[in-house]
Amino acid sequence: MSPEKRKMQRNRQNGIPLTVVKRLPGYQRLLSELANKEVERISSRELAAKMKINPSQVRQDLSLFGTFGQQGYGYRVSYLLGEINKILGINTHTRMVLVGAGHLGRAIANYENFTKRGFIIEALFDQDPQVIGSTVNNLIVKDVRELGAYLATAPAEIGVICTPAAAAQEIADQLVRYGVKGIWNFAPVALKVPEEVCVEHVHIGESLMILSFQLRQKEKKFKR
Amino acid sequence: MSPEKRKMQRNRQNGIPLTVVKRLPGYQRLLSELANKEVERISSRELAAKMKINPSQVRQDLSLFGTFGQQGYGYRVSYLLGEINKILGINTHTRMVLVGAGHLGRAIANYENFTKRGFIIEALFDQDPQVIGSTVNNLIVKDVRELGAYLATAPAEIGVICTPAAAAQEIADQLVRYGVKGIWNFAPVALKVPEEVCVEHVHIGESLMILSFQLRQKEKKFKR
Repeated sequence: MSPEKRKMQRNRQNGIPLTVVKRLPGYQRLLSELANKEVERISSRELAAKMKINPSQVRQDLSLFGTFGQQGYGYRVSYLLGEINKILGINTHTRMVLVGAGHLGRAIANYENFTKRGFIIEALFDQDPQVIGSTVNNLIVKDVRELGAYLATAPAEIGVICTPAAAAQEIADQLVRYGVKGIWNFAPVALKVPEEVCVEHVHIGESLMILSFQLRQKEKKFKR
Repeated sequence: MSPEKRKMQRNRQNGIPLTVVKRLPGYQRLLSELANKEVERISSRELAAKMKINPSQVRQDLSLFGTFGQQGYGYRVSYLLGEINKILGINTHTRMVLVGAGHLGRAIANYENFTKRGFIIEALFDQDPQVIGSTVNNLIVKDVRELGAYLATAPAEIGVICTPAAAAQEIADQLVRYGVKGIWNFAPVALKVPEEVCVEHVHIGESLMILSFQLRQKEKKFKR
């Protein structure tokens, strides 16, 4: 195998290209909205328009998970949503802990959309004595020094890091030591973790850059 | 032109495919890090490894903006960073207002990375009398009823919406009425805006879904 091909494979998740994986939450959101409106079926063309990609791409994306579509009929919304939910681990109870109960941490702990999908933050930790003991969304913020002891008795699958950059690696190491397998990182720093641990780094600013780019493009267009 | 092709074109920004546009902030971040480490040049292969795409994709992406690479030499980091900064509107002063000074709004107002890149939040607004008058990152939170009057005298290019879903459309309408051309929307609701206005909707939960997916894939792999 060429090194290039090997690298490509590393960027696939169980045979699914990373670009497709990144579209799955979008499909999930659209299909949830359709299901809420009791829409029964949708064509690849309609789905494509909502996803802002082309219909053949939709058909190709969804074919990776089996053959859900039927020619001339389209996709059954509830079935497709169910399959995508399974793939994304939605509606199974996923246990989470959050470290860093500042503004961002509190915003995330208060976000109902995660809970509704089965992603439950079960404990919050901070190092600031003024924050420890305060209540966020019915949880009392614990001392970060209790993190290991807590995880030893109540294991979590996902750890959310909302600390400043300087503290993030140490927290990540501790989470991993106590069996956390997924890290959702909001700290602006790249984390080093063992191969079996997943990290998703949230770069909030990326969408601001994209907005800025689009603004500049539209300025040109509307000035013409 | 086929309807499919027309749709594809709509998803391009000035001839640049949306998938490439979405990678630009990643390139920008990597190149900034390299520039800070005083790295002078980088090959498409190295850039590809860091971006987790393949080298030919990198060459194709960057060729859209002109021919920056040189065979056997690679890309000049500072030059490429400069070009991408120009394209993304980084380091030009972009004026922003933020509405909704709750936890998320405060987290964003406190985020230094935006300011460093020239994206300046110049005023904050809220409707809660307990929040109005409080100080966030040296700015006093104003009454949202003053939003129009403020923008009339101090126009902004980007409006950041961190309100609950129910209030977001009304705020968007007002921002647009007073000349805001870009909306960075954190409220979990789709906004309707005129064609000349850009919206970037931040779905914080998307990366959590991707993390959950990856966790499940790795579980399978490491159990084998």
